[in-house]
Amino acid sequence: MKIKAPKGMRDFYPEDMRRQNWLFDAWRRASRAFGFEEYEGPIFEDLALYTLKSGEGIVSEIFHFESRGGDHFAIRPEMTPTLARMVAARANAMPAPIKWFSLPRMCRAERPQRGRLREFFQWNADILGVEDPLADAEIIALAVEFFRSVGLTAEDVVIRVNSRRLAAAALTSLGIAPERHEQAFALIDRHERLPADVFDTMWTEAFGESPSAGRLTEFLKTSSREETLRLARESGEAGAAAADQFDELWTRLDEFGVSDWRAFDLRIVRGLAYYTGIVFEAHTRGGELRALLGGGRYDDLTGLLDGPRVPGVGFGMGDAPVFEALKSLDKLPTPGESLDVFLIDADAALFPQVLRIAGELRQTGLRVDFSYKRAAIGKQFRQADARGAQVAIVVGAELAARGELTVKHLASGAQRGVSTNELRDDAWKALGLKPA
Amino acid sequence: MKIKAPKGMRDFYPEDMRRQNWLFDAWRRASRAFGFEEYEGPIFEDLALYTLKSGEGIVSEIFHFESRGGDHFAIRPEMTPTLARMVAARANAMPAPIKWFSLPRMCRAERPQRGRLREFFQWNADILGVEDPLADAEIIALAVEFFRSVGLTAEDVVIRVNSRRLAAAALTSLGIAPERHEQAFALIDRHERLPADVFDTMWTEAFGESPSAGRLTEFLKTSSREETLRLARESGEAGAAAADQFDELWTRLDEFGVSDWRAFDLRIVRGLAYYTGIVFEAHTRGGELRALLGGGRYDDLTGLLDGPRVPGVGFGMGDAPVFEALKSLDKLPTPGESLDVFLIDADAALFPQVLRIAGELRQTGLRVDFSYKRAAIGKQFRQADARGAQVAIVVGAELAARGELTVKHLASGAQRGVSTNELRDDAWKALGLKPA
Repeated sequence: MKIKAPKGMRDFYPEDMRRQNWLFDAWRRASRAFGFEEYEGPIFEDLALYTLKSGEGIVSEIFHFESRGGDHFAIRPEMTPTLARMVAARANAMPAPIKWFSLPRMCRAERPQRGRLREFFQWNADILGVEDPLADAEIIALAVEFFRSVGLTAEDVVIRVNSRRLAAAALTSLGIAPERHEQAFALIDRHERLPADVFDTMWTEAFGESPSAGRLTEFLKTSSREETLRLARESGEAGAAAADQFDELWTRLDEFGVSDWRAFDLRIVRGLAYYTGIVFEAHTRGGELRALLGGGRYDDLTGLLDGPRVPGVGFGMGDAPVFEALKSLDKLPTPGESLDVFLIDADAALFPQVLRIAGELRQTGLRVDFSYKRAAIGKQFRQADARGAQVAIVVGAELAARGELTVKHLASGAQRGVSTNELRDDAWKALGLKPA
Repeated sequence: MKIKAPKGMRDFYPEDMRRQNWLFDAWRRASRAFGFEEYEGPIFEDLALYTLKSGEGIVSEIFHFESRGGDHFAIRPEMTPTLARMVAARANAMPAPIKWFSLPRMCRAERPQRGRLREFFQWNADILGVEDPLADAEIIALAVEFFRSVGLTAEDVVIRVNSRRLAAAALTSLGIAPERHEQAFALIDRHERLPADVFDTMWTEAFGESPSAGRLTEFLKTSSREETLRLARESGEAGAAAADQFDELWTRLDEFGVSDWRAFDLRIVRGLAYYTGIVFEAHTRGGELRALLGGGRYDDLTGLLDGPRVPGVGFGMGDAPVFEALKSLDKLPTPGESLDVFLIDADAALFPQVLRIAGELRQTGLRVDFSYKRAAIGKQFRQADARGAQVAIVVGAELAARGELTVKHLASGAQRGVSTNELRDDAWKALGLKPA
């Protein structure tokens, strides 16, 4: 019987896993450089955790099941509800700011024929418990540091930043009443993903000509930060406070050294009702791909869960969009197999010595391997090359004669004798190797 | 509304996650030292993948569901079926030995009241495509290297090794017919987990007095390796071959330098029909805890999946038994929070400089943080200590005056001036720090 991986799910063979681990390492390194701590949660949660936040509509988009005990569970489609649950349980015991990240695996019941992944990994980072624009700036700087660390530049990627509160002031100035802002945001969020005529029809159906789809589109596209802040300041006290906070965010981004990467963009509003302050997305400058990340500030992470009020700011970045962007920019690495030492016997009778030396070297953390089949030296050297070994150690007659092994650096071809004593004292040094 | 984590599932707060990552790192380091490559698969698979191997009985033990498209899926309860599926798809394209490991997250529908985990992580390692006892020895040496690397010794842990083929010869010598060996193995596998009288009753119901439960128990417990090999050699050609292979395994374990850790034990037979050669378990020497790992040799990994025949040997080790054992032996570490640099301003007006320096240092991979609230220097130093920082950098008036910062090593209290130029040239060196 032939059984394949479920549609939309990925197998990670070693070459795929090396690339996946390369991304996980980069996500972790950036998070830790910024003082974030890692957390994790269960792969499935009570279904209620998701319907509570997103309504019953979410049920058709997630994988869910009933356990024998009659509980309704769902494989997590996002990490925020888990984060909210965990923080609500301990919010009073944790000093702010809480800076947490996670690299959750998650699933969504996408229709496989659309070729979308049903399982993916996502980098989540959040700063909780503070309303300071400093946190907004730091979370954006964190995203930038990841992009920078994987070889991208401000010419490849832009972080498009807006504020829900500035956008609200702008919509009011266009004649859209506050009670209709949420509906307008949801439509505007789809603007770039819909064909222009489809968007225009949808907008006109909802808002008629006040304003017209054309006027709205033009306004959102061309409004500068200065104009938007001026409009907000003129709109009253709340607008003025939002403008001040946005100014502070801009200054903090300057101080963090990431000004080149940011752009004010009134079209970025994000679709979720959840966001209440700044909102942002990262895109390739070409702009032809979907967003690399999306995030923003929320007033209360744990409100639905009876926790104390916890404001915060955060983002989520999926693995697939990052790989797509790196590929389109020709910056996707292909990490090869790597090994520190490949042991070679000059004579099959010496193979037990190969195993003894392997056993000892592996205890030092060196990555060591050898051929399972006894073969000519030349063939063993070719295996060493194929496995990406840095050095080959030949176990030959010199071992019995004077306790010496021949060490060959495969890249340079340089070769020298190393005594087993030197190897035992400090194998890394004796072999001229350093931990990766 | 209050929602908790599903029963039997774990939340990993940062302090839990540090410990979890410590274990994952140790598993990965040992695997890589032995030249194993990492792979991964989907969190759920076709339900048929599990019923194919284990029969319909498995369905009540796993979490399964039907998708909207009518597919029956199950959250993976073990990794071997996924490994078999992946290997079957590419077996002809991969040179042997295939040395693979994985750290899968998996779920089993345990009854929560038993206090057993429904979600756990497991280290899986397999050597595929070879029948050489060298592979049997290397997989055992790998398990030993992990135990050694986390501070355990051969006085803490023992690898109890047997062979299904030797055990078969022994059972035959006790008068148990070959067609009943499978049934006997399944019972013997439960021997140590059942109260003695319960086992005796079950055995007597199945096998009567041929042999008696008492005689069987005594025989399995006291039979030495030498006696068992002699019995096997006397039993015929197949038994003699099994004895030779077992001797070779023993020699290879000597060569790998792990003789202290192994013990021949005729009671270890493993419950799964799947195993055909050597079988082994790791236990604490005290023996009061459940097995730390279980594994063995199988004739054909992919047989049920229409793949080419792939023999192999492997083991699985759960995270919970390892933590239990380390705790009972008082060797469970509690990794604290750690940071390289905590930046301190001597005056709130200098805080923008703190952010500039943080932005630069974080690009070097240093883990850098600072206080969100402006506070007295003493309070900031206390925060630096609480966060586990190695050095504190004070940004004071010397910065503007002569481009200098004060660097204090928090463990030693040693303090000196470092210029911003030195920091820019090589921050790690200027701060006297090395990557962890």
